[in-house]
Amino acid sequence: MPELTLVPQPLTRERFAPYGDVVETSGDRSNVMNDLRFERFHDLCKIDFDKGGRPCISIARCKSASALPYRIDIVERHPLGSQAFVPLTPFQMMVVVAPPLASVEASDLVAFVTNGRQGINYHRGTWHMPLIAFEEGQQFLIVDYTGDEANCDVHSLDEVVTLLEA
Amino acid sequence: MPELTLVPQPLTRERFAPYGDVVETSGDRSNVMNDLRFERFHDLCKIDFDKGGRPCISIARCKSASALPYRIDIVERHPLGSQAFVPLTPFQMMVVVAPPLASVEASDLVAFVTNGRQGINYHRGTWHMPLIAFEEGQQFLIVDYTGDEANCDVHSLDEVVTLLEA
Repeated sequence: MPELTLVPQPLTRERFAPYGDVVETSGDRSNVMNDLRFERFHDLCKIDFDKGGRPCISIARCKSASALPYRIDIVERHPLGSQAFVPLTPFQMMVVVAPPLASVEASDLVAFVTNGRQGINYHRGTWHMPLIAFEEGQQFLIVDYTGDEANCDVHSLDEVVTLLEA
Repeated sequence: MPELTLVPQPLTRERFAPYGDVVETSGDRSNVMNDLRFERFHDLCKIDFDKGGRPCISIARCKSASALPYRIDIVERHPLGSQAFVPLTPFQMMVVVAPPLASVEASDLVAFVTNGRQGINYHRGTWHMPLIAFEEGQQFLIVDYTGDEANCDVHSLDEVVTLLEA
């Protein structure tokens, strides 16, 4: 069986556009608030949710750290809403995604690494590797959909993919 | 004119309940996800928004640090939606609030200090001091309402309030 490897590229808003949004303090959406005491980087991603549910805020805390090289044999998607992850301390995230199409193959996957401050927002239906972190205790703020209907499709890849160092 | 001072008390979910939610990793809403690699603290606050708009994610960065004692002469409220602030690095926040009633006086205000990890979510209509931070560059993730209608009422207090050290 052929071996597929992925080397993450630095995350930018442009590169990530087919998959979702980058949550970051880039200059182009800034305005001031509170008598100039703060700069507000406004409306950085698309919160999207099916009307059968609602958006919610949660925190994920890493209990078991992952390491590179990392084997990916499944991907998942959320058909009912977007899903944002923002690190609650500065640390780099690895993100592996494929476009929000009906089907996905290992060769569709691309990998990104964040700059330590960036968060990401998967658009509804974007295929992605389940969340990993490289240190126990690292926390992410999550903004995603909650409701009564099942909202996670898991797909076993046709080939195992190995995620390498950037 | 009498002088009003406020000494912040440690923020807890119970104490803050009349005003909003605490966004934190307390034990009672935890479940595991992603093959036990993460603990998820689920649905920590009420995202509430008028149907004329939608919720959005933004980042606020402190340009001008405040210091204690701090004078408060106005409060504000957002009639169309909730507003969450979560620190993007560990730092303590000071929060001054009054219940979401039609009117507010200086004597209605109470002050809280976070433990450095906690975020908060003001319920729709909760009166609060405008955001302050004590170090330039500190960042908050914001989840609040965006739309075309005006969503900030500002009220000048009948007495100036001085916020003291905890």
